[in-house]
Amino acid sequence: MRLAVLGVGLIGGSIGLGARERLGAEVVGYDPEPAVGAAALGRGAVDRFAPTLSETVAGAQAVFVAAPVGQVAQVVGEALDAVGPGCVVSDVGSTKRTVARAFGDERFVGGHPLAGAETAGVAHARVDLFEGATWYLTPGPLTSGVLYERLHRLITGLGAQPAAIEADAHDRLMASVSHLPHVLSNVLVAQAARALGEGERMPATGPSFRDATRVAGASSRIWTDIYLANRDALASCIDDTVERLRDVRGKLQAGDGEALAAWNDAARADRRALLETGLAGGAVHELHVSVPNRPGVLADIALSLGRAGVNIVDMALSPSPDNRQGVVALWVRGDEHAGRALELIGSLSFTVTRA
Amino acid sequence: MRLAVLGVGLIGGSIGLGARERLGAEVVGYDPEPAVGAAALGRGAVDRFAPTLSETVAGAQAVFVAAPVGQVAQVVGEALDAVGPGCVVSDVGSTKRTVARAFGDERFVGGHPLAGAETAGVAHARVDLFEGATWYLTPGPLTSGVLYERLHRLITGLGAQPAAIEADAHDRLMASVSHLPHVLSNVLVAQAARALGEGERMPATGPSFRDATRVAGASSRIWTDIYLANRDALASCIDDTVERLRDVRGKLQAGDGEALAAWNDAARADRRALLETGLAGGAVHELHVSVPNRPGVLADIALSLGRAGVNIVDMALSPSPDNRQGVVALWVRGDEHAGRALELIGSLSFTVTRA
Repeated sequence: MRLAVLGVGLIGGSIGLGARERLGAEVVGYDPEPAVGAAALGRGAVDRFAPTLSETVAGAQAVFVAAPVGQVAQVVGEALDAVGPGCVVSDVGSTKRTVARAFGDERFVGGHPLAGAETAGVAHARVDLFEGATWYLTPGPLTSGVLYERLHRLITGLGAQPAAIEADAHDRLMASVSHLPHVLSNVLVAQAARALGEGERMPATGPSFRDATRVAGASSRIWTDIYLANRDALASCIDDTVERLRDVRGKLQAGDGEALAAWNDAARADRRALLETGLAGGAVHELHVSVPNRPGVLADIALSLGRAGVNIVDMALSPSPDNRQGVVALWVRGDEHAGRALELIGSLSFTVTRA
Repeated sequence: MRLAVLGVGLIGGSIGLGARERLGAEVVGYDPEPAVGAAALGRGAVDRFAPTLSETVAGAQAVFVAAPVGQVAQVVGEALDAVGPGCVVSDVGSTKRTVARAFGDERFVGGHPLAGAETAGVAHARVDLFEGATWYLTPGPLTSGVLYERLHRLITGLGAQPAAIEADAHDRLMASVSHLPHVLSNVLVAQAARALGEGERMPATGPSFRDATRVAGASSRIWTDIYLANRDALASCIDDTVERLRDVRGKLQAGDGEALAAWNDAARADRRALLETGLAGGAVHELHVSVPNRPGVLADIALSLGRAGVNIVDMALSPSPDNRQGVVALWVRGDEHAGRALELIGSLSFTVTRA
């Protein structure tokens, strides 16, 4: 099996590492930046590099396009022009309608692994980057069954869980759960900075502000492309958000506490439902634990729950201002596990309550 | 020194604990819920309870009103009616214009400790809850200097850092950095739930969605009061947000990549400026570290930096889907500390890059 990887950053590099080590594939790489290519060779992410795209894909059974989102459509087109009829071409871009043109080709299947969003560069590439990750595939009406099955097998071999989805639906979902959160994060810091600009001191911001603005101003190089590639779906999400904000504003101005409480209760139910999606074992419970901020405390709690088979769905640590104490919010699935977690954490002598 | 604490939940209970243990004060408590009162006695948060508000405040030199936000104005009024001329009355509510009426009384100083937002109940009360925390004070034009100084000294004695601010400015700031983030978090989960409602599967949501929605649907009992108490400032923040969203939407629809990149760069600059506020030592740098998810790794990193005097301003851990690996984002202040952190983390054999 020979694979070609066009663009060997974090994602392309991890595909190369995984394909070589787990699947015994020969991996030929291409990257427009020589330094990136050298680093990928050094990491063992590719067997060799080829000087041109057409030489890279020659003889490959599968081609992964891992170029920046703004260049994906062009590189996919070039790859389809260069490969023969028996080669599957996929990409890893975070929007899928950008490569719509390629959907007219039976050899193309769009893809998007949900992994590695927090960092970049082949230095962070890992053989197990995709282990357990959802990897969306967007086959078109013309996609060859043989080639789709090959791609599916490759992705499973990398440890990921392939999930087919229609390209439009994918882009709307990503607008909703990834691109809009980034936009709102940017908006939040901008309005807070404006409040500061009025001459007031910034308070010690609480955890809600820090959490809500963690992704503010994420790499412009990556995100400008993503915003533009998904602009229709994102604009629609923004419209929806504006409408919802107007609705809350109306409740506020009317002083309607009952309506505000109902709206807030619905948000709590929505959040739980979203956390639960795809998980077995019932509703997610939120527990609050007061802990001293010393080494090993979180590890103790996590290990104690782990030994009892209690899975932590999500975790958020809010340190106190002096960093000596903190509150850990833990989300645990299922009544039984929540009860067991309360017991176990209590037996470690920490104060724990159900939120 | 005798203090009265009206409402002995997390905040009132911690005031009582701190005043008794750190200041040697006699603390008399009042709480409408007998079970809460019993728990506070059990925790040692008060010396004794009194059956009525007026008996509780009798002979006190200072009264702290720690009632829910919706009841603060009324309880403050009752306390001012009950105490003599030499007693300072303060509250701990998260909005300050609600007690505006009391600003006509020289014995009243509004207050708001930035601590304990993540949990509730006297069970989580701690003698050091306020250690290092900003504690806003909103003296009015009539506030007695002697009484203000007494309150200031009490708060310093509890370990907090008092900071005077005008009540309007306080409420606008809180709308901006706390109440609006909660509203946007609710809106985000609602629109994502709607996207799901269209019949699509929820993707494994990334860390940006989890972080942005951590506070969605926070306690309706607490938050309905807060939203209503600060509705004007919050409505104004919502208007500003809607305007900013419209602006981004325009850039998207125009396909203006340059304008989007500039907007995103500005958000990054804003976030850094906000994180830096009040900190010495220069710009905040963001570092990304790839780490295995095993006990002690974060502790090793934190201790290594701590020994070198490198302070971690903020930290965010994004686990990989299989929970075996993760990326830690660390924010460190100052060029020198960032450089030192890169060296130290590198010497622990983790891959670390500057974001």
